[in-house]
Amino acid sequence: MLTAAYLGNRTIGVRPAEAEPPAAGQVRIRVAFVGLCGTDLHVAHGDMDQRVRTPLVFGHEMSGTIDAVGEGVGGWASGDKVTVMPLLWDGTCPACVAGNTHICQNLTFVGIDSPGALQALWNVPVLTLVRVPTTTSLRDAALIEPTAVAVHDVRRGNVKSGDKVVVLGGGPIGSLIASVAARFGAEVAVVEPDPGRRALVQRLGFETPDPGSTDVVAWVEEWTGGAGADVVFEVSGAAAAVALSTAVAKVRGTIVMVAIHSEPRAVNLQRVFWRELTIVGARVYQRADFETAVELISTGAIPTAALITRVAPLNEIEAALDDLEGGRAMKILIDVQDGQPEEATA
Amino acid sequence: MLTAAYLGNRTIGVRPAEAEPPAAGQVRIRVAFVGLCGTDLHVAHGDMDQRVRTPLVFGHEMSGTIDAVGEGVGGWASGDKVTVMPLLWDGTCPACVAGNTHICQNLTFVGIDSPGALQALWNVPVLTLVRVPTTTSLRDAALIEPTAVAVHDVRRGNVKSGDKVVVLGGGPIGSLIASVAARFGAEVAVVEPDPGRRALVQRLGFETPDPGSTDVVAWVEEWTGGAGADVVFEVSGAAAAVALSTAVAKVRGTIVMVAIHSEPRAVNLQRVFWRELTIVGARVYQRADFETAVELISTGAIPTAALITRVAPLNEIEAALDDLEGGRAMKILIDVQDGQPEEATA
Repeated sequence: MLTAAYLGNRTIGVRPAEAEPPAAGQVRIRVAFVGLCGTDLHVAHGDMDQRVRTPLVFGHEMSGTIDAVGEGVGGWASGDKVTVMPLLWDGTCPACVAGNTHICQNLTFVGIDSPGALQALWNVPVLTLVRVPTTTSLRDAALIEPTAVAVHDVRRGNVKSGDKVVVLGGGPIGSLIASVAARFGAEVAVVEPDPGRRALVQRLGFETPDPGSTDVVAWVEEWTGGAGADVVFEVSGAAAAVALSTAVAKVRGTIVMVAIHSEPRAVNLQRVFWRELTIVGARVYQRADFETAVELISTGAIPTAALITRVAPLNEIEAALDDLEGGRAMKILIDVQDGQPEEATA
Repeated sequence: MLTAAYLGNRTIGVRPAEAEPPAAGQVRIRVAFVGLCGTDLHVAHGDMDQRVRTPLVFGHEMSGTIDAVGEGVGGWASGDKVTVMPLLWDGTCPACVAGNTHICQNLTFVGIDSPGALQALWNVPVLTLVRVPTTTSLRDAALIEPTAVAVHDVRRGNVKSGDKVVVLGGGPIGSLIASVAARFGAEVAVVEPDPGRRALVQRLGFETPDPGSTDVVAWVEEWTGGAGADVVFEVSGAAAAVALSTAVAKVRGTIVMVAIHSEPRAVNLQRVFWRELTIVGARVYQRADFETAVELISTGAIPTAALITRVAPLNEIEAALDDLEGGRAMKILIDVQDGQPEEATA
């Protein structure tokens, strides 16, 4: 079978590998599609060299069908459509004991800290499996993982029906957060400087004040009748967006920190105090977020067709990563099925 | 009667004034004690010249007895012991409509935006009155307002019995937060660089790791069995304490921003994301906080004797402000009774 791996030194290799049978407690998935995300870019660019052990088969947004089940695995059968919640926790650290297994202090993120989905046949622990309805396409199902991120973010922000929500950053996660928040009953504005992404977000039906030509603080003030936004999502990772987040939030409003800020950011704590704002961090997801994401994807509540820019074969993954890096795509799926050997299909 | 007023240009004046009868809906309070706080220092230093109209009789932490009631005032009688919740809201802004009157978008803070308590006879709207039990000393009652601040902070932090709480800053508010959190069932550590304040906090029974000689992050790690603190209160206003706050909070821990940070601070948003921290602003108080503060003070749950460094007469207020500024006192009360004219006593 073919795999795509980060080899270190900012190099990706598409190489053949031997498929292994699933161990006890594992299933082997015939991988269909793998979405590429910002974390994959970080891995490919060497930003996470201190964390990853190479060669690393990466990829964690995926869909597929069960190919084989290992010893002791019940409830799953060959052919079942699945995606994977790519988290493994130790169950014993203080965070796990307190019930926050998804952010275990010793979390293994599958696809970064252990082998990921960019391989035709992939063995995973059965506990990571998430069932996909038979009526959901495998292409759409590859968006369940990033949708679960968005669901988690929206739940962390406690978005309620009727809320006015501002999303700072209109990339894939920002667009998914906007879509999920709208599904939860919110009115949503997305602030995105890139004209192409802004146009796409506008086509999805959201307000899109142009930060290049609009005073966004004044715009939100007017949009909310002088109150400010109920919930703000910082998805861009930009210092300017952090400043904007506290400026547009209402009294007792909530700011959800979704983006990764690799260095400390200047935050207007005077405003946090004055308006009694709440800033919450939101990282990955919990099982309930995945379940909601499956429901949203399977019922067509997420505009998957608009969000998937294109599907590329495994051996063109480098070009796909380049397009993402250059902002020439929203979501690109890698079709791993092309790389599957005949004997595995049997 | 005598009043103490900020005259502008960093000058305080202690001057005679005519007492006025209470207007309709007001009561006139015979002021007993007025506590001085950091905000009073800011006023006296001219830091708030853009906000205050001079001459400003300041002071808002107080106790007294009702001297006279205005027209239409029911339920209050001459001689009743009282303190004041020094907030006036417009009732119509989005924050008020949403129920957050205490942080009204057009809030009048009595003692900053309107005349305060440093006058022997003080007229206030009846709605600001808070009843003090007859058995509570007027000296202790002057600490109800800052205790209400601390109660509000502890409630914003959702402190629960058994929590491990870290308070950054061991001044009057930090000490009160520690006392209230302990009363709510928490174990409390106070981080305070000043040896004198640290010694006082230690005598109150709290843990006091010395930030000058201790790795506070490692200390909290060990104190909490590797988890981190449940709730952290940033009361110092120092940039270093903001950095410490995210470092010592547990997964899903809460950081309460109590201090006023006059400039944006570098915040480790990566840590906020990674540990799913919550940062909440906490400003002033609500009626329920005052009621809890009255109960805590009147039942002896707050170590008022330890916190009140001394009581000074009104005409020594400048020396008192100097001592506060120089860190030579925790809480200083101004005894306003000395300044009361004979005719008003009749």
